[in-house]
Amino acid sequence: MTNQNIKDLEAIVGKGECFSDKAHLSAYCYDATKERKYPECVVFPHNEEEVSEILKYCNTHLIPVIPRGAGSGFTGGSLAVNGGVVLALEKHMNQILEIDMENMVARVQPGVVNMQLQKAVEAVGLFYPPDPASEHYSTLGGNVSENAGGMRAAKYGITKDFVMALRAVLPNGDIIRAGKKTIKDVAGYNIAGILIASEGTLGVITEITLKLLSKPKFKQSAMGVFPSIQSAMNAVYKTMASGVTPVAMEFLDNLSIRAVEEKFNKGLPKDAGAILITEVDGNLPEEITYQINKIEDKFCENGAVNFIKANNEEEAADLWFARKNASPSITIYGSKKLNEDITVPRSKLPELLERIAEVSKKYGVVIPCFGHTGDGNVHTNVMVDGSNPQELEKGHKAIEEIFKITVELGGTLSGEHGIGLSKAPFMHLAFSEEEMQLFRSIKQAFDPNNILNPGKMGL
Amino acid sequence: MTNQNIKDLEAIVGKGECFSDKAHLSAYCYDATKERKYPECVVFPHNEEEVSEILKYCNTHLIPVIPRGAGSGFTGGSLAVNGGVVLALEKHMNQILEIDMENMVARVQPGVVNMQLQKAVEAVGLFYPPDPASEHYSTLGGNVSENAGGMRAAKYGITKDFVMALRAVLPNGDIIRAGKKTIKDVAGYNIAGILIASEGTLGVITEITLKLLSKPKFKQSAMGVFPSIQSAMNAVYKTMASGVTPVAMEFLDNLSIRAVEEKFNKGLPKDAGAILITEVDGNLPEEITYQINKIEDKFCENGAVNFIKANNEEEAADLWFARKNASPSITIYGSKKLNEDITVPRSKLPELLERIAEVSKKYGVVIPCFGHTGDGNVHTNVMVDGSNPQELEKGHKAIEEIFKITVELGGTLSGEHGIGLSKAPFMHLAFSEEEMQLFRSIKQAFDPNNILNPGKMGL
Repeated sequence: MTNQNIKDLEAIVGKGECFSDKAHLSAYCYDATKERKYPECVVFPHNEEEVSEILKYCNTHLIPVIPRGAGSGFTGGSLAVNGGVVLALEKHMNQILEIDMENMVARVQPGVVNMQLQKAVEAVGLFYPPDPASEHYSTLGGNVSENAGGMRAAKYGITKDFVMALRAVLPNGDIIRAGKKTIKDVAGYNIAGILIASEGTLGVITEITLKLLSKPKFKQSAMGVFPSIQSAMNAVYKTMASGVTPVAMEFLDNLSIRAVEEKFNKGLPKDAGAILITEVDGNLPEEITYQINKIEDKFCENGAVNFIKANNEEEAADLWFARKNASPSITIYGSKKLNEDITVPRSKLPELLERIAEVSKKYGVVIPCFGHTGDGNVHTNVMVDGSNPQELEKGHKAIEEIFKITVELGGTLSGEHGIGLSKAPFMHLAFSEEEMQLFRSIKQAFDPNNILNPGKMGL
Repeated sequence: MTNQNIKDLEAIVGKGECFSDKAHLSAYCYDATKERKYPECVVFPHNEEEVSEILKYCNTHLIPVIPRGAGSGFTGGSLAVNGGVVLALEKHMNQILEIDMENMVARVQPGVVNMQLQKAVEAVGLFYPPDPASEHYSTLGGNVSENAGGMRAAKYGITKDFVMALRAVLPNGDIIRAGKKTIKDVAGYNIAGILIASEGTLGVITEITLKLLSKPKFKQSAMGVFPSIQSAMNAVYKTMASGVTPVAMEFLDNLSIRAVEEKFNKGLPKDAGAILITEVDGNLPEEITYQINKIEDKFCENGAVNFIKANNEEEAADLWFARKNASPSITIYGSKKLNEDITVPRSKLPELLERIAEVSKKYGVVIPCFGHTGDGNVHTNVMVDGSNPQELEKGHKAIEEIFKITVELGGTLSGEHGIGLSKAPFMHLAFSEEEMQLFRSIKQAFDPNNILNPGKMGL
């Protein structure tokens, strides 16, 4: 980019909203992968019209544009791999525009933080279920772009299940609307559907209309302790197939349990093969009892040695403590965590975990696993010494083998985090050349000059 | 098409599976619009490989291909407007391939009839909610292509909310898979998302993986009688916003009530402004009672003069009789029904119905309305004497005005039926030139030679 380019962009957004100094470029060069890729410029648009002007300009001058929310992604989706402009949406475009009680719909700008919306709608008796682990800082624009999941996906689904409509700016600057404030809308191609999970490569999302539910009045949590990971995985899919749909069905394996226990000393069952932590909700106390009893039955039928019900919020928080602190605790096994969010059909969970254990043995790497087993989504963490290149290489080989196993079992490379940069080298494991070609044609249709978040998704 | 073309296609599917005689062309020239558009050839492929061969051949020879299920669409989506080949999928590709109890998923071929799947999964305690009025004859391939809705959409959503994965053949013959048997899958662009509702213009769907639910154990129906359509419409959105989500919330206006009563003499309240018929479900009797009581409260608060609960299946069938027979009954008002499936945000229903009444007065046409108000979807039926060209013209003007009102109220041209041929002239009311251009780019990306179902959706 030339100095003139930067001046021209500044003319669009105004003084104090366009930067190319080292401090700003450093502040916008990373995400949760901890990779660093420096943009040449960071701009802070105030509104959709400015986004449109910026894209039109960059499309004409062939300058890459990288949309960015909180930069909390796990796969490098918001990194500027080819320089260009980071379009930072969290500074000005962060307003909840409307909470429409009558239609149970929220309209938000992309920079609104997930939890900000959750709190605002819960204050009026409504409910926005998608709850990625990053909910306290990730933005809804990022959630839509990566199609974020979370713990409550087992019952409520993921971000895409709540997006009713989007406004977006195309790479050529065109402003489009897709979808309506209605459950049903079948006029025209489902543009909102393809923008979701497109990782900022097809358009810049400028407004999101989200479906809300009414907030269930009651909930209860419980924990099951299992002798082996196999028995726990069997319990997961037998429970889900029994007619009960828990809000969440989370697990920790023995390595994860021990890591949390070592760090926090909470009296967790250190010898357990696995624990499952679950939550149910409903509008009647009877619904809660019915579901918790059914889960207890299924857990015990599948070998649970202990089943603990939370009787109040404090006890529930205690049960959830292990799950919420698994990720930071497992660093006791290695300074570098190669964290993947593979997902398989639920009935394949026992086999998946068995085969991950074999990979761990084969490469001599520790692989603690935890995650959202209610929807088949397992966070596998290959732990290595980040300063040791041989260890790192072993880790990467183990990851590749785990991806192969996942695809073999009918699963996906990513349940939540997207492809971005990190998983791009593995796209060939999951997609045929014909499928990759179709992805490239779609990219070309939206973005013929390849200016929008280039170099991502292995395209 | 030449005789050689037809011979070449016959070589792919085999003798007795490729026809160009008058009888076959007549049998495959219509849909529920009763328009007639003659193809030049009808083929009955046995499997995905044959579909691929046919498309490859037709793409090379620039022959239009029109995929067809039951031909029960309301907007001409399966009509051969430019001749070519009707690809009839209901004859051989009509198998339920798998009902996977453990993952609660069904895998089907496109020619499976909706009700065939509903019955098969209910027999094993599972549940496939989408229930278009055509459920007894429309195929799942057609349901996916038009993104069919139904009465249960108010609680459970529409076809797209149940599609987990698709297999499809692209116009060039490439076979692709999109999606997985998992709730979460964010690798690559959401191809399944864009194929849904694409009306057979982007690819031929050859296999569908559908999410199933467990079948709720209890249900109950009820009817509310209202003095005016406004009071009924207020009751709809106040109920939906109260935290209860009925499975269905259907309405009939006074004209529809009187038509059913005239034909069937069932003792319906002929002087009522409108009736609402609703159903709730759940796994506990307490859930049913809670929901029905809440609905009764909301109905009465909004002016209901009568509230009737069904105490058994027979009484429920009685309540539903009026709704199920509304469509065939209203023909007493005119030989030709111009039936549109407009949808607005629920809170706009009172205004929508008020303004439709004004349109009715202005053009002197009778417009009975009924439909799925729980999701804002109203079937408006402009009734005219089909043999009277002036009447027909008045009817079409009324329809155009109703579309304008719908869009003005934030609604959509089509909640269920799609655009096809019938609504193509109205696309400009709902979409900007930029949005239409994007649709055309997407069509071009999938189908550069425009062989797949050409002439549809106003592209």
